[in-house]
Amino acid sequence: MNLKRYLPVLQWATQYNRGQATSDLIAAVIVTVMLIPQSLAYALLAGLPAQVGLYASILPLVVYALFGTSRTLSVGPVAVVSLMTAAALAPLAEIGTSAYLAGAVLIAVMSGLMLTVMGVMKLGFLANFLSHPVISGFISASGIVIATSQLKHLFGVQSSGHNLLDIGRSLAESLNDTNLPTLLVGGGALLFLLWSRRYLKPLLRKLGLAARAADILTKTAPILAVLATTLVAWALRLDEQGVKLVGTVPSGLPSFTMPSLDPALWSQLAVSALLISVVGFVESVSVGQTLAAKRRQRIDPDQELIGLGTANLSSGFSGGMPVTGGFSRSVVNFDAGAETPAAGAYTAVGIALATLFLTPVIAWLPQATLAATIIVAVATLIDLPALGRTFRYSRTDFGAMLATILLTLVHSVEAGIIAGVALSIGLFLYRTSRPHCAVVGRVPGTEHFRNVLRHDVELCPKVTFLRVDESLYFANARFLEETVMDLITREPELTDLVLVCPAVNLVDASALESLETINERLRDAGVRLHLSEVKGPVMDRLKDTELLCHLGGRVHLSTYEAWQALTNLSPA
Amino acid sequence: MNLKRYLPVLQWATQYNRGQATSDLIAAVIVTVMLIPQSLAYALLAGLPAQVGLYASILPLVVYALFGTSRTLSVGPVAVVSLMTAAALAPLAEIGTSAYLAGAVLIAVMSGLMLTVMGVMKLGFLANFLSHPVISGFISASGIVIATSQLKHLFGVQSSGHNLLDIGRSLAESLNDTNLPTLLVGGGALLFLLWSRRYLKPLLRKLGLAARAADILTKTAPILAVLATTLVAWALRLDEQGVKLVGTVPSGLPSFTMPSLDPALWSQLAVSALLISVVGFVESVSVGQTLAAKRRQRIDPDQELIGLGTANLSSGFSGGMPVTGGFSRSVVNFDAGAETPAAGAYTAVGIALATLFLTPVIAWLPQATLAATIIVAVATLIDLPALGRTFRYSRTDFGAMLATILLTLVHSVEAGIIAGVALSIGLFLYRTSRPHCAVVGRVPGTEHFRNVLRHDVELCPKVTFLRVDESLYFANARFLEETVMDLITREPELTDLVLVCPAVNLVDASALESLETINERLRDAGVRLHLSEVKGPVMDRLKDTELLCHLGGRVHLSTYEAWQALTNLSPA
Repeated sequence: MNLKRYLPVLQWATQYNRGQATSDLIAAVIVTVMLIPQSLAYALLAGLPAQVGLYASILPLVVYALFGTSRTLSVGPVAVVSLMTAAALAPLAEIGTSAYLAGAVLIAVMSGLMLTVMGVMKLGFLANFLSHPVISGFISASGIVIATSQLKHLFGVQSSGHNLLDIGRSLAESLNDTNLPTLLVGGGALLFLLWSRRYLKPLLRKLGLAARAADILTKTAPILAVLATTLVAWALRLDEQGVKLVGTVPSGLPSFTMPSLDPALWSQLAVSALLISVVGFVESVSVGQTLAAKRRQRIDPDQELIGLGTANLSSGFSGGMPVTGGFSRSVVNFDAGAETPAAGAYTAVGIALATLFLTPVIAWLPQATLAATIIVAVATLIDLPALGRTFRYSRTDFGAMLATILLTLVHSVEAGIIAGVALSIGLFLYRTSRPHCAVVGRVPGTEHFRNVLRHDVELCPKVTFLRVDESLYFANARFLEETVMDLITREPELTDLVLVCPAVNLVDASALESLETINERLRDAGVRLHLSEVKGPVMDRLKDTELLCHLGGRVHLSTYEAWQALTNLSPA
Repeated sequence: MNLKRYLPVLQWATQYNRGQATSDLIAAVIVTVMLIPQSLAYALLAGLPAQVGLYASILPLVVYALFGTSRTLSVGPVAVVSLMTAAALAPLAEIGTSAYLAGAVLIAVMSGLMLTVMGVMKLGFLANFLSHPVISGFISASGIVIATSQLKHLFGVQSSGHNLLDIGRSLAESLNDTNLPTLLVGGGALLFLLWSRRYLKPLLRKLGLAARAADILTKTAPILAVLATTLVAWALRLDEQGVKLVGTVPSGLPSFTMPSLDPALWSQLAVSALLISVVGFVESVSVGQTLAAKRRQRIDPDQELIGLGTANLSSGFSGGMPVTGGFSRSVVNFDAGAETPAAGAYTAVGIALATLFLTPVIAWLPQATLAATIIVAVATLIDLPALGRTFRYSRTDFGAMLATILLTLVHSVEAGIIAGVALSIGLFLYRTSRPHCAVVGRVPGTEHFRNVLRHDVELCPKVTFLRVDESLYFANARFLEETVMDLITREPELTDLVLVCPAVNLVDASALESLETINERLRDAGVRLHLSEVKGPVMDRLKDTELLCHLGGRVHLSTYEAWQALTNLSPA
């Protein structure tokens, strides 16, 4: 049983049948066709040689098929993670050096280790700290940065930078050197891809294809652009016109790569690897969950960490780059009918064949074509209307989202994501540090108690019922002290104060001390402190404490009980 | 009115009378006598020349009297802040250099700026993030580190280090060089102080003094130790025996000091200055609040930030060191009858007179005596039984406390406090990320609903009432999705699911998206989603959202209403 939990392959492989194998094979062929240009393009985006993208699309897919829990997730290089890899490596080494390549391998290995350890320790909940608005803002902003970073390849100029300001400045300076043949190839590819995205599917439908087939074929349009521009580049010897090609790619399967063991490098890359791990995991799990829900399957987030972790380890040790589950590929895999993770393993075979036999062709592929495929792919990531939706619902969530977007655009991806997480947590703590407190009264003739400011309720002058709408913990412990002391200075006749606690899910040690302080101060002021509607788990904790031993008043099961007991004691 | 808020001096100075002046003067004399050795000792602890401690006890006291809201807080150098200052400066400069002194001045100025800005922006709540167990553990551990760091002065040896391991190792190596006359002076002072702490008060009572007078006189015992050992050092020319004395102290009032404007230095000290600010503020406010509560006065935490901020600014600009409200001094000030902050200003005059006329005497004071006063003072800070109390109440709070203590002891004060804050926040988020959820049923014959696992309640097979005992926000949004999906896979007959929300104080944008997802998935599964007991502020927010437009079921005011409506629709 336990083995099945850690090796999900055992859950499906034993009942694997020919029908599933056929479906998986068809999906694998389609995904392979889609993954070849993507893996080359994302290697380019990360500043790495083209073959690194291919290497990262072989072993990781096989390993994920063994350890992953999603039936249809397609693992490999993805845009946002590639951008983050490039940003992490920029301060360490020049693109094209062996140190740069070694850094990418190390990030994959470190990220793999981190994810695997998090999975074994069941720390998947850590990913929850990336709130939806932050991750959505981050991905939109990254998409914008990625798209602009590819313009240099489209124009055939040199430029650098990892945020919008640097890229823009650098691009503006170099645009005079635009290489016309490059722009023609890249622009042509871009226009074709944009056209195909909108018109290819209707065209294929008109030609008689079924909706699903038309949909899938449309998504493989990039391979057409790749083939066409490669052919043009070869026929016209475009390299002699200054068009940058992918160039010589070593042919053959990846070999074992030993990652650097330099502790200084490990500590320099630690934060980046952690961020890449978490962002990659969150992206991958949300794709996986969406697809699983459609077929009423489940994925196990902790085991997903192990699946992605081992995939990254295998990527690093085979000379690849960081990988995760990609959105568009996984959707194609799902739509093409993949039924088990075996489809991923078959895709790996497809990519392995490409590294063995297609490298002479790939050498003639213009970089501008890859840039065009990246731009079209990331355009779908950018969701700016989400800003408006979030703004209307919650100003604090909007604040965290906007900070993430702005910092990602003008500073760096890492600053963006860190600021987003810190702000989400900080704003949440701020909100809970000034909890909503309401004096409540009895809804006449019922056992219900409601806020005196919102409802027409009965009150009792000597007894105040104060409902605290928040768990009591360190961040609001002092606030509660202040609220209660304010209340009793305003109502000199008070003899009893009832804290109504149905919304108090936790009383931590700081709040316990504050409640003891409140109890003592109230006793000095001649007021008894009562509690009512204390939740079971909270009561279990409070049972043996000083607070209950010295409580001026009593603990009442319900507020109505307290009302009956206290309004009888001191009739209004 | 507004001016009075920012200049609390206006609240009391206009009605200041002779009676108050007399009380304040008496308190000031006693506090001055206590503050002279303390200010010298804490300068020594911070690795600074003796006069810096005196300078920090003049202007800051006057400024706090103008801007502070506590009537009896005694501002000046304190042990924990001095230790943190030394730890912050250690990597930057050698003790005794002008760079070291400039660093201390800059920390005071930066900390002053930070506190003042936080006060003006009403960011006092930030201090809440230091939970009680963390601050208590931090102060205990700092006390231990401070006490051991003073042993070198007691033995007259060289040693260094800012954590227990380094100090211990360094001390063990140098203990062979112990200077016997130093040990005799220091040991004698230590024994006298320990004796006076236990036996001086009873003795004074026997001699006929009133309880309060005996108490106060006991607390000024350090000045007796200072006078006696100074006299011995002078009479026996102990400096020629290798006893380290305070030495020549420039006589005269402090002069204006321009802090360094080097941006590199500012950024190096920023984190330290922030930690010193927050720790100093928390310590000071809790002392101030305790004393204020005894006389039914109030202090305003945001204005306290301004009071302490301006005090630190004035300390820095007059060549002093970081200051805050000290516990023991403030208690003495309170007990000695201080009625207004004027007592602080009078104390400042006392210290100013000391810098003018007492420096020739101070020059003969043995450092070992100061070390003895520090050891005795910080011994009262160490509260190890708090560890046991916290352990019994809450394992998570205990974890944060223990981490703070251990890291402070074996690594550094900054690591300790940062780990404590990070762990408190992390553990809180972890606890809320897996909220307590309970299926509830009706307590027969009532309108109350309780956990089916804890109470004997009525259920309805096709309707499940799920109570969520936590605010819904990013950290637990995904958990809710999983819980609900688990529930409906376990109960295939389900037609209606009611989320009972009396403990849901907040639904943020992430949770809103999750609720929308849950609603859609439930609809696909043929289950209607209902909400009940939604709090007013939460309902206000949800009103205009997609969720309520597309909700499968309805929003019920009370759970009983939902019960009536749904159990009629589908009779059990």
